[in-house]
Amino acid sequence: MTVYNFTAGPAMLPKPVMEQAAEEFFNWGGRGYSVMEVSHRSADFRSLAEESEQDFRDLLGVPAHYKVLFLAGGAQTQFATVPMNLLGDLKCAAYVKTGHWGEKAIIESSRYASMRVVADAKPSGFTTIPEESSWDDYQDAAYLHYVDNETIQGVEFPFIPSSQDVPLVCDMSSNLLSRPFDVEKFGVIYACAQKTLSIAGVTIVCVDEALFDRKPFVQLPNTLNYAIQAEKGSMYNTPPTYPWYLASLVFKWVKSQGGVPEMAHRARQKSQKLYEYIDQEDFYENRVEKSVRSRMNVPFFLPTKELDLMFAAESAKSGLIGLKGHRVVGGARASIYNAMPEEGVDVLIDFMKDFAKRYG
Amino acid sequence: MTVYNFTAGPAMLPKPVMEQAAEEFFNWGGRGYSVMEVSHRSADFRSLAEESEQDFRDLLGVPAHYKVLFLAGGAQTQFATVPMNLLGDLKCAAYVKTGHWGEKAIIESSRYASMRVVADAKPSGFTTIPEESSWDDYQDAAYLHYVDNETIQGVEFPFIPSSQDVPLVCDMSSNLLSRPFDVEKFGVIYACAQKTLSIAGVTIVCVDEALFDRKPFVQLPNTLNYAIQAEKGSMYNTPPTYPWYLASLVFKWVKSQGGVPEMAHRARQKSQKLYEYIDQEDFYENRVEKSVRSRMNVPFFLPTKELDLMFAAESAKSGLIGLKGHRVVGGARASIYNAMPEEGVDVLIDFMKDFAKRYG
Repeated sequence: MTVYNFTAGPAMLPKPVMEQAAEEFFNWGGRGYSVMEVSHRSADFRSLAEESEQDFRDLLGVPAHYKVLFLAGGAQTQFATVPMNLLGDLKCAAYVKTGHWGEKAIIESSRYASMRVVADAKPSGFTTIPEESSWDDYQDAAYLHYVDNETIQGVEFPFIPSSQDVPLVCDMSSNLLSRPFDVEKFGVIYACAQKTLSIAGVTIVCVDEALFDRKPFVQLPNTLNYAIQAEKGSMYNTPPTYPWYLASLVFKWVKSQGGVPEMAHRARQKSQKLYEYIDQEDFYENRVEKSVRSRMNVPFFLPTKELDLMFAAESAKSGLIGLKGHRVVGGARASIYNAMPEEGVDVLIDFMKDFAKRYG
Repeated sequence: MTVYNFTAGPAMLPKPVMEQAAEEFFNWGGRGYSVMEVSHRSADFRSLAEESEQDFRDLLGVPAHYKVLFLAGGAQTQFATVPMNLLGDLKCAAYVKTGHWGEKAIIESSRYASMRVVADAKPSGFTTIPEESSWDDYQDAAYLHYVDNETIQGVEFPFIPSSQDVPLVCDMSSNLLSRPFDVEKFGVIYACAQKTLSIAGVTIVCVDEALFDRKPFVQLPNTLNYAIQAEKGSMYNTPPTYPWYLASLVFKWVKSQGGVPEMAHRARQKSQKLYEYIDQEDFYENRVEKSVRSRMNVPFFLPTKELDLMFAAESAKSGLIGLKGHRVVGGARASIYNAMPEEGVDVLIDFMKDFAKRYG
């Protein structure tokens, strides 16, 4: 049975990446040892680190005045370390709330900053993104933070906020490398790796070095200090080397497939197919406004909670795993990041049709 | 050519661990997918997490009132988060300095605590550990911190300080699971994984839950908060799942070999052999006082810096890698953690004999 893995994260990796990693598991590039078992300060690992950074820069057109960091701790650690790195002499930080992760970021960050939630989609049940013209003013804020794609509610920004002189900080944990965008518009982009970049354990932070002028909190651990890690090439301490290695393979794979524009094309293709089927079939429901539907995570509800559970169980038995909705919202959810081939979505739709026929 | 890997860390893993990981790389326990690609909240990963914790408890006899956490960030992140978790209403923290890592811990922690260095081996060039009776008083300190094994200077504690009512905090990053000890004597034990436990990316923290009474710093990120992570089974956020998985295999391997006492037996065997050879051969020198020599990291110097460099280059060509000394001290160094078989030490000694004959 072919297994298709729709887990939201840690999620599936591209098959060719897994194959290369398996092939050189004991013998990395013919060196006679594993990449897991080598010093991060060795010439070989350093060249992996440099090449992977260059590939990342190439893929997104990252300008030279941005630093690319490979850190530990995941996106939720960034919820705390973003304000500790960026507040400087300012007190206030602005946040947009469009789903579960934006809300968690606000709660964590509010221990460090005077918090201004300039737009809040919670009253809509997180099915919309408030129009930018309706957002509160935040021109005195240290930065504006938002989550580009909300994995639980399945809501994704179709635009980049025009924050003027206020640095934009964006959590792209679940859609980085899935569409091209202008890095220059951001102060900081960060992403945990276990959805579109690698396995759990490494966090990519892409930061405009102009922000290093801001004095970080004295309580900020050095390992999470952007300026220090930038100066040390992300090797102030031992970085998570194997997750970094797998990220380097994913970058090569994206390049080989045609780069980020091709990933965007595929994401549109896969998600449109799935939403079209859901919209035409009364048995399934997606409640998100069409213009802000996520291309990465497609949540849907069946007529009853019992059917939600049966759907999760039966689909798993058919080799379609990870389709249970997040415990916060229930229902079902298909996560279809870069690594999910289109045929996985086709097989899922066939299963959904059959399930609807049997229980509809 | 058989390669023996003497790297200080990220270091080699036991061969049977690598073999099992390779065998189930695509198909974890027959499930049809990789352990890398599965949600940490899935029943399968949760049972891995629980079993690995139990194995760790069994190996060291961890009492029930200690929590075992699997966190991100490495030991150097703990240098900051130990004081943020443990200072509470107290101001002062006590540190023992017996090498490079102890010194780094002191520098990082002094941003959070009023620092009292109660013993300092630096004047000896880090070749000794000051006798406990000579240490300054620290009974008003929030805790006493020391580094059990210093990887760069090759100095290891042959005793556990009797800190009375002050909780002992110990960095065991480079020798955890290499000898049995009484966990009950400690408030906190922590260790990065890339030397004796797993690959880089996971950090084990074993903490007496009595310390959760102390109010943590408001600036402590939730992901690094001991009490919060203990309550959530180390899954407040996504843990580094693959490094955790490899740790679970290492724990099983240690058990299968006869447990921690057997690891201690082998470590004594391997290190004694190497020190005996170094001591009898004028060409090589280890400067550490015999009673505090490390069983894990054996640094040694050749007659000149040129010979140090030639030794590193020629040994690597012979398949003995990672023998270059740390940039802080120079010389050569053999790291011989649990995973290094005794035959690796035999091959190293043979090479050293031959090298001394040729250049001595």
